[in-house]
Amino acid sequence: MSAEPTVPPVPPVVLDAMGGDHGPAETVAGAVAARRAYQVPVTLVGDEPRVLDELRRHGAVGEIPVVHAHDAVPMAERGAAAATLATSSLAVGCELVGRGAGRAFVSAGSTGAVVSCAVRGIGRRSGVLRPALAVALPSLAGGASVLVDAGATADPSPAMVAQFALLGVGYARAVLGRTDPAVGLLSIGSEPGKGNRLTREAAVLLAASPVRFHGAIEGHDVLAGIVDVIVTDGFTGNVVLKNVEGCVRTALAMVARAGIASPERLAEVARRYDPETHGGAALLGLRGTVVVAHGSSRAATIARACVVAGALAGHDPRAGTGTITAEPVS
Amino acid sequence: MSAEPTVPPVPPVVLDAMGGDHGPAETVAGAVAARRAYQVPVTLVGDEPRVLDELRRHGAVGEIPVVHAHDAVPMAERGAAAATLATSSLAVGCELVGRGAGRAFVSAGSTGAVVSCAVRGIGRRSGVLRPALAVALPSLAGGASVLVDAGATADPSPAMVAQFALLGVGYARAVLGRTDPAVGLLSIGSEPGKGNRLTREAAVLLAASPVRFHGAIEGHDVLAGIVDVIVTDGFTGNVVLKNVEGCVRTALAMVARAGIASPERLAEVARRYDPETHGGAALLGLRGTVVVAHGSSRAATIARACVVAGALAGHDPRAGTGTITAEPVS
Repeated sequence: MSAEPTVPPVPPVVLDAMGGDHGPAETVAGAVAARRAYQVPVTLVGDEPRVLDELRRHGAVGEIPVVHAHDAVPMAERGAAAATLATSSLAVGCELVGRGAGRAFVSAGSTGAVVSCAVRGIGRRSGVLRPALAVALPSLAGGASVLVDAGATADPSPAMVAQFALLGVGYARAVLGRTDPAVGLLSIGSEPGKGNRLTREAAVLLAASPVRFHGAIEGHDVLAGIVDVIVTDGFTGNVVLKNVEGCVRTALAMVARAGIASPERLAEVARRYDPETHGGAALLGLRGTVVVAHGSSRAATIARACVVAGALAGHDPRAGTGTITAEPVS
Repeated sequence: MSAEPTVPPVPPVVLDAMGGDHGPAETVAGAVAARRAYQVPVTLVGDEPRVLDELRRHGAVGEIPVVHAHDAVPMAERGAAAATLATSSLAVGCELVGRGAGRAFVSAGSTGAVVSCAVRGIGRRSGVLRPALAVALPSLAGGASVLVDAGATADPSPAMVAQFALLGVGYARAVLGRTDPAVGLLSIGSEPGKGNRLTREAAVLLAASPVRFHGAIEGHDVLAGIVDVIVTDGFTGNVVLKNVEGCVRTALAMVARAGIASPERLAEVARRYDPETHGGAALLGLRGTVVVAHGSSRAATIARACVVAGALAGHDPRAGTGTITAEPVS
């Protein structure tokens, strides 16, 4: 019998080994990096023989536990039937988190399938009306703002939008390290009466809510870093997130085409400001933490998503203070 | 008595001399350029003594007619009371077009005030449910797509969105010179069932409408030039338009900050792809043509807006073929 006090082990981050365009090779490499470089304990879920093969390449068999799941959810199959999903790495992983065997779930699978499995397997936190996706967007000044909802709930009510702001404030504290995050409502003009029905009603609720409400911001403010939390409905948020990616890519291609900067140096700039390197999208409002990494994620991005998931899981989203920033990994 | 047949004069484009951050100096210079460089007849509306002063600097007194209007609408006063607006250059100009004394109205004033004056003074075309703003966005390939609605109607019905597509097709023919424009519906995924309530219902109407419907496009496709017309509600459209401007500006600033291209060469690239240089926003669906130029417009952009207004006014928006392209003026 040992005289040492027993420290209960930290539950691991559960990682979907099969998700994404490059699973399981890059997901397993990401799990190894998360454990070795960032000391985040990870459990892999997926097709056991294939996952073990990949672990063997890193000399990590036994170091990282594997839970078998029969099926992978194909990236294209976003509206996959519940029957197909039930035996998938997504469903098995979410179920592990739902019963407390993991503290967070990370997948590079399709956002729609992850949201659907997570709501079913983990469940909403008491009082939360709808989950919301949070994505950290880089700002020119070098920091980041969190965009929420980036695509989980396409038609929210004003009360849901006001709640997304609270969830976003929790993210800004836990992941971005902000102590008193300012919230901006994405709209089309800051004068009273501007906006659509949803933003006009949400603005009234936000002004009366406990968040530090900056008021309306517009499309050109999204990368300006003037607020910590950009709150919007999941339709507008998803359009804007993808528009940011497309416009930055296009603008850099314009510079390349003009022949005034080398493609290699431009690729470096693109990487530095890529939202992907900022930890993936976090699904907020559930009884466990869920992070959705981009489908094209490589090992470094997967590792980063595991770190963000661990940070979010380690905090009460309404009270925590941050320990990491959203600086890119590369 | 002359033996020559009498050709009725082409009604002029009516230009708000007082609108924008740089009126009347830059607006009057723009009117002179539109007339002299592009052979577009223009009538100026505004504070007569000040407008005549500016015309004198160009030796254009007598060459360009002036209609006096007592008030200018301040840029900030978007929700200006009807009483203030009635004697404004906006109201007087729209009234001229409404009674056929001008074929189009151009202003760099606030979009909200222009839309409100134009609907009152010019009126909707028969059968049109709501007006929509159309803005030509540059694409990397060198062409342009038209985004409609870019901010006139924040909460449209699905039927209105389907009608915006028809209006956008007219614009793509008249201004972009496309013979059979393809229409994409801005949404958050192209699979059936994706999107919000509005886009799901609008997609059904668009599939049954006489436009060439490409289906859904996403935020990263906005500058990709894969369709000629990008149709959306006025809230999402305005957020996206401003997001494009902000992201392109931010991406170029990232390159400048990285020190890998000279600021002068980057400014050239920015100018070449600036939506502003593509002719301003056209308010579609009225009984006369209205073009809203950006508030910061200088003479060249004002002249370009007059050319676009003339082109739109010279065509039946449902049948016309284009004579000009959306190439930048500078």
